[in-house]
Parts: sequence; C-alpha cells; structure tokens
Amino acid sequence: MRIILDGMGGDNAPEEIVKGAAASSKIIRHEICIVGDETRIKRELDKHDHEAKNISIVHAAGVITDEDRPVEAIRNKKDSSLVKALMLVRNGEGDMLLSAGNSGAVMTGSLLLLGRLGAIGRPALGAIYPMIGKGIGQIGLLIDAGANAECKPSDLRNFAVMGSVFAEKVYEISNPAVGLVNMGAEPGKGSRTLKEAYQLLLGTKEQGVNFIGNIEGRDVPTGIADVIVCDGMTGNVILKLTEGLGYGIFGLMKKTFTSTARAKVGSALLLPKMKELKQIFNYNGYGGAPILGVAHPVIKMHGSSIYSAVENGILRSLPFVEKNVIGEIAETLEKLAPIQGRE
Amino acid sequence: MRIILDGMGGDNAPEEIVKGAAASSKIIRHEICIVGDETRIKRELDKHDHEAKNISIVHAAGVITDEDRPVEAIRNKKDSSLVKALMLVRNGEGDMLLSAGNSGAVMTGSLLLLGRLGAIGRPALGAIYPMIGKGIGQIGLLIDAGANAECKPSDLRNFAVMGSVFAEKVYEISNPAVGLVNMGAEPGKGSRTLKEAYQLLLGTKEQGVNFIGNIEGRDVPTGIADVIVCDGMTGNVILKLTEGLGYGIFGLMKKTFTSTARAKVGSALLLPKMKELKQIFNYNGYGGAPILGVAHPVIKMHGSSIYSAVENGILRSLPFVEKNVIGEIAETLEKLAPIQGRE
Repeated sequence: MRIILDGMGGDNAPEEIVKGAAASSKIIRHEICIVGDETRIKRELDKHDHEAKNISIVHAAGVITDEDRPVEAIRNKKDSSLVKALMLVRNGEGDMLLSAGNSGAVMTGSLLLLGRLGAIGRPALGAIYPMIGKGIGQIGLLIDAGANAECKPSDLRNFAVMGSVFAEKVYEISNPAVGLVNMGAEPGKGSRTLKEAYQLLLGTKEQGVNFIGNIEGRDVPTGIADVIVCDGMTGNVILKLTEGLGYGIFGLMKKTFTSTARAKVGSALLLPKMKELKQIFNYNGYGGAPILGVAHPVIKMHGSSIYSAVENGILRSLPFVEKNVIGEIAETLEKLAPIQGRE
Repeated sequence: MRIILDGMGGDNAPEEIVKGAAASSKIIRHEICIVGDETRIKRELDKHDHEAKNISIVHAAGVITDEDRPVEAIRNKKDSSLVKALMLVRNGEGDMLLSAGNSGAVMTGSLLLLGRLGAIGRPALGAIYPMIGKGIGQIGLLIDAGANAECKPSDLRNFAVMGSVFAEKVYEISNPAVGLVNMGAEPGKGSRTLKEAYQLLLGTKEQGVNFIGNIEGRDVPTGIADVIVCDGMTGNVILKLTEGLGYGIFGLMKKTFTSTARAKVGSALLLPKMKELKQIFNYNGYGGAPILGVAHPVIKMHGSSIYSAVENGILRSLPFVEKNVIGEIAETLEKLAPIQGRE
C-alpha cells in the first residue's frame, strides 16, 4: 500500500506531520509518501528516527491554507501539496490520502479530483464520536459531521450505509447499530425529510444495515447506536457541543474541586483518574475522520493534529484500504432499491 | 395576580403539584388556583402546611395523559384539567398558566385556545439552559426547544425577539446577548434559512436586541450568548445531548473515581463538591419553560417535576406577568420592518 500524506496541511505542518510519518514508518511495512516542500520535509525527517525504505517524498512548492477559499484553491493552486497529493491518488499512484489541511479544501478537492462514488449525491464527513456510555476509549462514527448543511432523505440513507460499512471494517464493530438523530424516538417524528429517511433506512435492513430507528440527543453518547446518522448541521452541532460541554464540565470540575482545602486533597488523590477521563475528549488518540462517498479513501485529520494524531491517523486507517471499504459500500448501495418519491 | 396551576398534569400529579403550590402559597401573596379533581386536591392540600387564603380549587373531572394525541385531546376532553385551566386564562380569570402535563397538548392547547400573539407565525418552547462556562447555577434561554421541527427565517427572528425580552425581564439578564446556532461563526455559514435569518436578526438590533451573530455548538454552554436561537430540531438535540452528556460524564466519573482504593478516598473527600456539580443538571431547581408566541403567559414544567420544581416554577415565573413580557414582545415586533423576500 502507498499512503499519501499531505505534508503541509494543518496548524503544525510540516513538523508534526513528518514526525508522525517517521513514527509510523517503523511500525508498518507500507510506503508513506509525504507530499510537500522537499527541503523542509527532509530537514524534519532527519530529526526523527524512521524507517527510510518506508518513506518517500514528492515535492510540492505550494500550500493551501485555512484562509484559502476551497473551490478556488483546488482549481488554481495546482502545485499545492493537497492538489498534488489528490492527483497521486487519482492517478493510481497512491491508495489513500491523509490531510490535516483546510477542511473545505480537502472535501472539495476529494469531490472535484477523485469524483463521487457511484450514484452518491453528496459525500459526507464522518467523525469519531466518544461513546462515553460504554466507557473510556469506546467510539462510534458520526456522519455527516458538517459537509452538508441540508440533506435529502436519500443522502441520509447513503450516510447510513457508508457509515455502517466503515464502522464495521475500520472500527471493527460487529454488526454496528445505526441510529437516525431525531427529536423523538417514535417513527413518525420530525421533519418530512426525517420521516422519509426513516422509511428508506428500514429498506436498508435487507442489505445488512442494522438500523435501530430514531435516536434522541440524549442517546447519542450512550453508544446505543454505533453509527449516528444526521445532516451536517445537526452533526456539526452535536460534535462541537460535545467538545464544548466536555471542556466546560472539566473546567468547572477543576474550579470546584480546588475551592476548599479538603477538596484539594481529594483532587490530588484523583489526579490520575481525572487524566484518564480527560482522554475521552483528546481526539489525538482516535485517528482521523473519513470522507465517505468519494471514489478513493480520504482521511481528514484535525487541523491541530500533533504527531501522535498523525501516527494514529495512519495506523488506524489501514483497514479503509485493506478491507476494501469503498468497494463494499458501492456493492451495498447497488443492491438497494432505487429512491422513489419526493427528492 | 391569579396563577392557574394544572393540578393533574405530569408524572407526579396531583401529589407533588399540590405540595409545590402549598409551599408557594406561604411565600407569595398571589392566588394560586389549582385545577383538577377537587377531592384529591383537597386531600393532598390537607397534608401540607399552606396559606389557605392564597389557594383556590377549580374542579375538573378529566385528565389529559401523555398517551393522548394533543389535538384530539384539546378538542374532545373539555373537562380535563388542562383545557379548563386554559379556558380560565382565556376568559381573563387567570393571568398565567403552569402545567407539567403532556407537552404537545400544552403547546397545542395554548395555540388553539389562547391564540397567537400578533403576527407571530409559530409559537416556540423556551428552555432553561445551564451556562456552565459562567459557573454553577448560571442560566440562559434556549428557543425553540422542540415545538417546530422546521423554521422559516422570520420564525427565528421572532424567537430572538421573544427570547431576548423574556431573558431580560424574567431571568433579569441585562441586555442579553442573542446568538444564532450555526455550523460556523462567519455570517455566510449554513443553510439558506440560516443565512436569511442572520440578516433579519441584524435588523433587530435597532429595536434593542443584542444580536452577537452566529454561534457554534461549542459556544452554547459557555454563556457567550444568553439567548440561544435555533429551530426546534436543533434545540431539541442540544437540550437532550446536554442532558445525556452530563449524565454520561457523571456516570463515568463515579465509575472511574471508585476504581482504586486511593481514588475512593479522594472521591469521599470530594463528595460535597460533586453534589454541587450535579446540581447543574438538576432541572428541578431552575423553574419552568415558557411557551412564547401565544397571547397569554404559559409555563411548561418538566413532566417529572417534584414539588420543588413546581415551587420554583411558580416563584420564578412571576415576572412573566408582573413585567408584562407579552406586551413588551408585541411592542418590539410591531416596530420591526416587515419580512421581505422568500418566506
């Protein structure tokens, strides 16, 4: 396998990206091809212990930054690390792309340069979600995490299929439960789009999707569903509210638990446990987020990824290619009944 | 003031409702009129210390339960405590209604029997939101918390005006900051509805609404906005996810903090502080949720309200009437430019 890594994307590029690649090169036998400023990447690489035969560099002089407008940047910055990396995957010179760069550009570039997968109307961004009801380190997949503000019922159905295959193959969750986020658990709840999506999701059961019905906001972190299906607006709010509440509750804990002498002693004794808990919201440990619905495997890593996030991103994404997730998704979607009614 | 209390609505009616009314009667000078089964209410009232001159009973033989369909129940159950209570307010024999009953029926009944306020298309359900970024006990108002799955830009604008007046008068937040929930902070983000709502909200600034722009999920619990404006689907997810995450994190804390002997000692020392923290998610302390956009003050209390929730619901809602919140809302809305464009 040849893994294409955008060496210049993200807040900590190229330093942490290269460091993460170096660490990964010692663990896996695949080739990691870092795309970006050759001189800078070589300089960084020299700083870290790595397996030289597993690492290659493809030079790219430009960078797409967070300030660039996605569509313009993909069209005009042909020499950027992201566009060059995408072209390698497109031309069969790479099996998977990982980037911590401009999210919109990674999504747009994947769509424009790699193309849609089969009949999928809208690709989606998956995101790892911490299932705290199941314990520390337990995860699920939230899809769509923010690529599509509004969705049609068929989009939501496709997200369910894609998320189900991904969670099963990559997260190794057997027969993952799929839930549709709604404002009530009963089948007739929510907007017309959600009612129709519910019906379409029932139809995926025959193709092996373990659709468990509507789930409410309170069910999301319990792990009752391994795959959380929703439009990008809802997914974005869920993901960011989870982050904000985690941050807020731990902040309040810190303040409250040190407000008296007695509490300070208690806190000191609990310090290792608090660190354990805080790991729930440390996304560096989880790996990256898949872009699903495009023709090749793409992983979007968090913009502020440090080397361990890059390393986890690479190591945990291998099954995306090895287990032919995209082929499996295409096969399942082909078997489903064509969408009827309002769309 | 004559406060109308639905004595039979909610999981703990009439026992806890009456107990809450009894407690309130000793604190305020207003009349609390309990509507419901006279025999049962009298029996409950006799159990608790109360100020007899502040309490009256209006008999109602029927009850609307959670199993009833809202529209049918309001139309057919004329002798239910909720319909009788609503009619008292409608006929000017009561200044405000509080009910812990079937949410859909309280909303539908308010709309059908009390009528819309002025040109408001859709009434909304407000909900108290814990602003943990500001500290324990700090609150804001989330609107709409679930009455309208889909909303037009003008609905969102009206929610902002109504929420702003309510938060200022009832929560006593001076010049409350109003934020529009979106999937990014920049003005051009999100669906067409949200983009148009953003523009309409800019127009409310002249009428004194302190619109601070779009806010993301992660901003919601920080308190950067005192009034969180969104459609009912988003609001429902925010409210229930907050509940689920609070519950989940405290559950995990409990488990983790008792997993070693050392941690157990620490936990014991921190017990009072943990109880303090847990209060954040104890909605019984906060009072009820206003239904805004109907012609009279209505407060929906949580279905599982215990007496303290009823007492807080009554005591904290008094400014809803005393400060003429509905009149203020109507006045502000009249001054705003008429809605133009797609609706």
